[in-house]
Amino acid sequence: MNEIRFGVLGTGGIGRRTLEHATAEDDLTPVAACDRNGVAIADEALDVEELLAATEGNIASGPDDDQRTDGGAAVKQAGEHRGVAASRQGNPTETPIDDIIEASERLDAVLFALPNLEHDFIPRVADRFAEAGYEGVLVDVLKRSRVIGMLAERADAFEQSGITFVCGAGATPGFLTGAASIAAQSFVEVEAVDIWWGVGLKSGYEDNRGTVREDIAHLDDYDLETARDLSEAEIEEIIDEHDGVIEFTDMEHADDVLLERAGICDAADVTVGGVLDVRSDEKPTTTTVRVTGRTFDGERGTNTFQLDDATSMEANVNGPALGYTRAGVLRNRAGEFGVFGPAELMPRG
Amino acid sequence: MNEIRFGVLGTGGIGRRTLEHATAEDDLTPVAACDRNGVAIADEALDVEELLAATEGNIASGPDDDQRTDGGAAVKQAGEHRGVAASRQGNPTETPIDDIIEASERLDAVLFALPNLEHDFIPRVADRFAEAGYEGVLVDVLKRSRVIGMLAERADAFEQSGITFVCGAGATPGFLTGAASIAAQSFVEVEAVDIWWGVGLKSGYEDNRGTVREDIAHLDDYDLETARDLSEAEIEEIIDEHDGVIEFTDMEHADDVLLERAGICDAADVTVGGVLDVRSDEKPTTTTVRVTGRTFDGERGTNTFQLDDATSMEANVNGPALGYTRAGVLRNRAGEFGVFGPAELMPRG
Repeated sequence: MNEIRFGVLGTGGIGRRTLEHATAEDDLTPVAACDRNGVAIADEALDVEELLAATEGNIASGPDDDQRTDGGAAVKQAGEHRGVAASRQGNPTETPIDDIIEASERLDAVLFALPNLEHDFIPRVADRFAEAGYEGVLVDVLKRSRVIGMLAERADAFEQSGITFVCGAGATPGFLTGAASIAAQSFVEVEAVDIWWGVGLKSGYEDNRGTVREDIAHLDDYDLETARDLSEAEIEEIIDEHDGVIEFTDMEHADDVLLERAGICDAADVTVGGVLDVRSDEKPTTTTVRVTGRTFDGERGTNTFQLDDATSMEANVNGPALGYTRAGVLRNRAGEFGVFGPAELMPRG
Repeated sequence: MNEIRFGVLGTGGIGRRTLEHATAEDDLTPVAACDRNGVAIADEALDVEELLAATEGNIASGPDDDQRTDGGAAVKQAGEHRGVAASRQGNPTETPIDDIIEASERLDAVLFALPNLEHDFIPRVADRFAEAGYEGVLVDVLKRSRVIGMLAERADAFEQSGITFVCGAGATPGFLTGAASIAAQSFVEVEAVDIWWGVGLKSGYEDNRGTVREDIAHLDDYDLETARDLSEAEIEEIIDEHDGVIEFTDMEHADDVLLERAGICDAADVTVGGVLDVRSDEKPTTTTVRVTGRTFDGERGTNTFQLDDATSMEANVNGPALGYTRAGVLRNRAGEFGVFGPAELMPRG
């Protein structure tokens, strides 16, 4: 049987959509999920519909998560519990991640849908899986180049435990680095990879405040630390200053190191930018990957990959994340452990 | 060391270009090559330049190969030998493939650059490798859907021997099925994959007569058997009738079964067509892959992958063939044997 039993850490936008997306796929069975205050572990399969209803509005995005993760006007509350703890499948806990690790023997894969506002948060969570001797796949959708290095330092520990860690498996990096590595096949030398994304996030804004905050950290006047300390009001102010449409250039996105790891090109030859519109669901620009190189017969050309404007950011994060999860499970079952980037794997549809 | 030592069966257009292309890649070392009458096996590495010079014009394309493989006006001749046998690295032989098999212990991969005008020719050659207990990668760039089934029937034999067979690893199928499987990641259901290629083959025509003959077999009035029996003059006549530009629709290309094998979509949802211009090096149309599907959030969209017109058919066959060879060697070293299509692997640049 090719069934993949997986868990999700975090039930914010990405975590909830991963659960929802998986219900459309026969081979993917969600069996565990947690948020800050609760954990749900099923013997067979989670009732995703019930869990999604319980965790609606369950978004962590800022410095004072304690309130916002499970709080805020939109979050449902049942009795004294909120989020996963309020689900009839959930239990309140003070150690949600440890609870998942304790049950991890039944999990082929665990998707990290956690905010990573501290660089080493996801690497440190991965350490705990490795220390517990977890044998399986860990997947994250992180974006920052420097986190890849932290994970790479842990490759030996992952190998010892039997962990196949798939990093940066969302849209960019992830989907678009996979596309770039395919597009590179015409060339003996890749000279440039240009990744340009468009995201329209009006109706999805509430669910993706953490992503918006992380994007703001890429603006010239900000970094991860200053962005983390912004209040919601300050973020709204920045958005207002840009009339809701923010353009990003030269982002520190892990596409560069992941493409270098895969042997496609030098990290320095990769540029990432894009436009975010938080006041429209229409994409402000078409997401495009351009790979320019030299062919063995001396020509120079640019191959192009474009996503339809109708495909949402959500679809382009969660589809690849689950595709790369499948690819990671294949590798794990074949005994290949360590750290893999998307361009080193082929997702399966 | 990640060095890949490989051999090439056949020194027609694809075989020679594979050798040439590999010289631009540090990790690929060609150590064996053969044609109908000769075999060259090196202790360390073939002198590709010398071998290419010896095999120039060494094209098999038709029913009377015996003359045309090594004969024809353009083929170089040295003393009584031609092709590989005329190379100072080569030896004449009546059993070139058996000679390669005998030396196959030193080969991580063998690329089949043989004409496949009989459906089962490549499968039967693969049988001989399996019978000899070859442990390594076999790669072909075949096109026909029905050959994949013949190879799949041999999966057990390949597993027993330790063979990782990568089939259809050229441009289409190969490059473009890989791109389609990436593009499919936005969708929970893929409704259509449309592959449309353009090839300008004026200066490359002499080197690719076998490919042109195989393409003609896709025209409405022909099939593989009737195309095989066409004389060169009859082929020229067909080309003249089309003023040098032939459009193909609904081709029996293995893209369909390979995408189905990889779980991307049903074979019936894949269409392949294109335009061949043998009187111009300009592509008559831009090679494009369109993948249409439905996202998990209910939208319908079409993602698109386009190859620059400046990238030649040769670059788009040989780059992927070597990329998929690398991917196959990775799998083989991880103990994964059997038959793999390109959409099941990620090529490495």
